[in-house]
Amino acid sequence: MILRSAPLTKAAFVPFGDVIEARGARRFEINDGMCARFHDLATLDLTEAGGRPLVSLFRSRAWTPPFALRLLERHPLSSQAFFPLGSEPFLVVVAPPGETPRAESVRAFRTDGRQGVNLRRGVWHHPLIALAEGAEFLVIDRGAEGETGDGNCDIYRLDHLPEPLVVEG
Amino acid sequence: MILRSAPLTKAAFVPFGDVIEARGARRFEINDGMCARFHDLATLDLTEAGGRPLVSLFRSRAWTPPFALRLLERHPLSSQAFFPLGSEPFLVVVAPPGETPRAESVRAFRTDGRQGVNLRRGVWHHPLIALAEGAEFLVIDRGAEGETGDGNCDIYRLDHLPEPLVVEG
Repeated sequence: MILRSAPLTKAAFVPFGDVIEARGARRFEINDGMCARFHDLATLDLTEAGGRPLVSLFRSRAWTPPFALRLLERHPLSSQAFFPLGSEPFLVVVAPPGETPRAESVRAFRTDGRQGVNLRRGVWHHPLIALAEGAEFLVIDRGAEGETGDGNCDIYRLDHLPEPLVVEG
Repeated sequence: MILRSAPLTKAAFVPFGDVIEARGARRFEINDGMCARFHDLATLDLTEAGGRPLVSLFRSRAWTPPFALRLLERHPLSSQAFFPLGSEPFLVVVAPPGETPRAESVRAFRTDGRQGVNLRRGVWHHPLIALAEGAEFLVIDRGAEGETGDGNCDIYRLDHLPEPLVVEG
């Protein structure tokens, strides 16, 4: 099955989380007019079960579509936000929350190079799909004292599907 | 008085907060080796008095050093993080926490274009000093229901100093 990516828009992404972008945001001027603030663009959900927000940087290798999706993951305790530091688009592959994602409900979105995303708690998603080698992202997700990442990450494998789910760029 | 900016380093910035950068960070590989994670780069302090973390974008006009500093501000309830989306350096002007900053204790730092900062709660700082017109930043600071920004921002004016404090680029 072929999964073609659609342009990422706030409206299309409603079931999955927030699109972090200046476009359409509440804007006000600060610092005596020297700066515009595009305000409150993501609903972070990071404090469940003793969690705290982590700020990290990700540096990715390039993915080269088309490729078959091997797995989706979800974080049952928290949201996860990605914002690109360069201007290259990246792909966001998601499926709605629920016990097991259905291949038919998986969606692929392509950012415009100036958009980030904040995945809502429990949303199934493919690991980050950067399209440029070395692409960097600021990531805001959850940490908790003494907890390994495994406790907040469920994996659903897709490589046993009767027909591979192939994402196009 | 002339304030010359120094290169921003973690060691020099200890009294003021975190330098958010990959260099020197705890790094581990994720996503089957497709991505490096530079982990937990800032101590966010955003939940005092009913606060929650806000993710916003700032788009700045260009500041052109040298210029006289007119004011410093501090946020008594929270940290504030800035990460640049482009690769242009910016200036960070800070003074240690305390009732009133002394002109002699004000420091200026210049980022290397790949660094962000997280200002610790109560640290005096000049509003964002981008050096490139239209420079954009991802900002992580605090919001609270029904509270105006004024409740978490003290201003200290510097334009009545006997001698102006002039920051050089």
